[in-house]
Amino acid sequence: MASSSSCKVVLANSIAKSLLSEVTAGIQKLDRAPRLHGFLANQDPAARMYADWSAKTCTENGVDFTLREVDAEDLEDHLREANTNDEIDGVIVYYPVFNPPRDRTLQWTVSLFKDVEGLSPQLISNMYQNIRYLDPPTNSMKSILPCTALAIIKILEHLQIYNTFLDYSKRLFGRRITVINRSEVVGRPLAALLANDGADVYSVDVTGVQQFSRGSGLKKQKHEVTDKEGWTLKDCLAISEVVISGVPGDKFKVPTEVVREGAVCINFSSEKNFTPDIKEKASIYVPAIGKVTIVVLMRNLLRLTQNRTQQNGTH
Amino acid sequence: MASSSSCKVVLANSIAKSLLSEVTAGIQKLDRAPRLHGFLANQDPAARMYADWSAKTCTENGVDFTLREVDAEDLEDHLREANTNDEIDGVIVYYPVFNPPRDRTLQWTVSLFKDVEGLSPQLISNMYQNIRYLDPPTNSMKSILPCTALAIIKILEHLQIYNTFLDYSKRLFGRRITVINRSEVVGRPLAALLANDGADVYSVDVTGVQQFSRGSGLKKQKHEVTDKEGWTLKDCLAISEVVISGVPGDKFKVPTEVVREGAVCINFSSEKNFTPDIKEKASIYVPAIGKVTIVVLMRNLLRLTQNRTQQNGTH
Repeated sequence: MASSSSCKVVLANSIAKSLLSEVTAGIQKLDRAPRLHGFLANQDPAARMYADWSAKTCTENGVDFTLREVDAEDLEDHLREANTNDEIDGVIVYYPVFNPPRDRTLQWTVSLFKDVEGLSPQLISNMYQNIRYLDPPTNSMKSILPCTALAIIKILEHLQIYNTFLDYSKRLFGRRITVINRSEVVGRPLAALLANDGADVYSVDVTGVQQFSRGSGLKKQKHEVTDKEGWTLKDCLAISEVVISGVPGDKFKVPTEVVREGAVCINFSSEKNFTPDIKEKASIYVPAIGKVTIVVLMRNLLRLTQNRTQQNGTH
Repeated sequence: MASSSSCKVVLANSIAKSLLSEVTAGIQKLDRAPRLHGFLANQDPAARMYADWSAKTCTENGVDFTLREVDAEDLEDHLREANTNDEIDGVIVYYPVFNPPRDRTLQWTVSLFKDVEGLSPQLISNMYQNIRYLDPPTNSMKSILPCTALAIIKILEHLQIYNTFLDYSKRLFGRRITVINRSEVVGRPLAALLANDGADVYSVDVTGVQQFSRGSGLKKQKHEVTDKEGWTLKDCLAISEVVISGVPGDKFKVPTEVVREGAVCINFSSEKNFTPDIKEKASIYVPAIGKVTIVVLMRNLLRLTQNRTQQNGTH
């Protein structure tokens, strides 16, 4: 079937591998294994599976990983202890623990210097403002980006949608990208990151369409957001060379008939947002991204460990 | 001025250099310098300048170049002699010699095995049919492509508009390209080549718009041409990420206001088809391509010399 169409179906594994070699090379340059603590405080089988999977990938690739199963009510204290414990380089929490607002408080408890998920308020704020370092103007410590959004960017780099002939932070100039999902954890940060790199991004959810863009000639240093009154998903798809979809649940499907010929289509939902006929339209189709996300998590841990070394003024 | 806009202005020289190193490496692998004969049979100062310039570039880069100034009426005989002369690997004629129809007869006189310009009927026929070798199914001898059209393709490769992540002959899948000029020497072959590589091409001249395309999902092996009734240049520009213009004379200008944000703009006219404000809109602007064309001419000579070696069954 793949041979009868012109679409290249790209599995996350093949992208993860090339990114992983970069990450393990960086880990080997450290004088000890970076230490990641994963906190599991629920009985959710999906969270347990993610915990086991990240443990396995980390351990196989030179990360000293510790899974800590703790009581939900004690988690905030454990996180505060981890923040000041010099033996710990990075922290990940397997959500959900409570409900979204209370989980948000947990996210904010994790120190920005140990947050492999990139969800700390200052990191998120840096990202939206297109500030790429924690210590301007020295710029020795890279700011950490949210894992899943960064995984999608790494995928777009791998697929050569980022044009490295163009200058850094302008490599998506001229690209039109539709992102379906505007969650705080993935969709909105992703739209912002893509727009900061020069794309015109159409961010779509059930409330409507917003455009994220640095404007004509990329004259603005960071993106601005405008509501596209009256626009629908179809309007966005008709003009987008890249379609990225992450709608939870199995009800939503991207309407293949309005996707552009030769579009690049990426699914980051745990369900399949694209129907099989997408292969008759797309030039590239990435059906899932999970394996890239976990490598990005290790990459963020590497950055944090390098940042701490930098901060301590040693090595 | 360049620093105040996001547009990258790319001079042909920088592209020619990287291509030249590939060509000279190939020339050095031959056991003798390839021999190119240039025939000048007119008093046209532009032709003389091109002859002098190609002589200089060839000589500086390992090609044994001979300029032969001959009488126009004797040229056809000289070309026939060159076709059978084993000492000559490639032939170029500096046009115009007579008028277009008679010059066309001259073009057809040059053997397809010595035609560095790629204008022989069988070469042109191969190109339109997307046949890339002279000796299928052995496929050891590459067919030669018209110099200027190939130069533009090499430029698009250099600018990473060709996506090497995609399979060969599909690397422009999803791209929309406007080509302004549909001459037999450059515009029409160029539109065909780009469409054969997967692009949707809008070919524009004073008679109207034609679309060159391999159709939905690139299901056709070679491009087909359809008239776009009622379409204008503006309709094409509004949806094209790449704009390639080669209109002779100084009257025609591409209307910047309808060019897409972040478009890649390439001028192959000897006049400037784009106005300076294109730099406020484009992501990349290539104002001229001449220096790349002459390297492509040497590249074609190298291919012809390699083909002849292949054919003789030696080396």
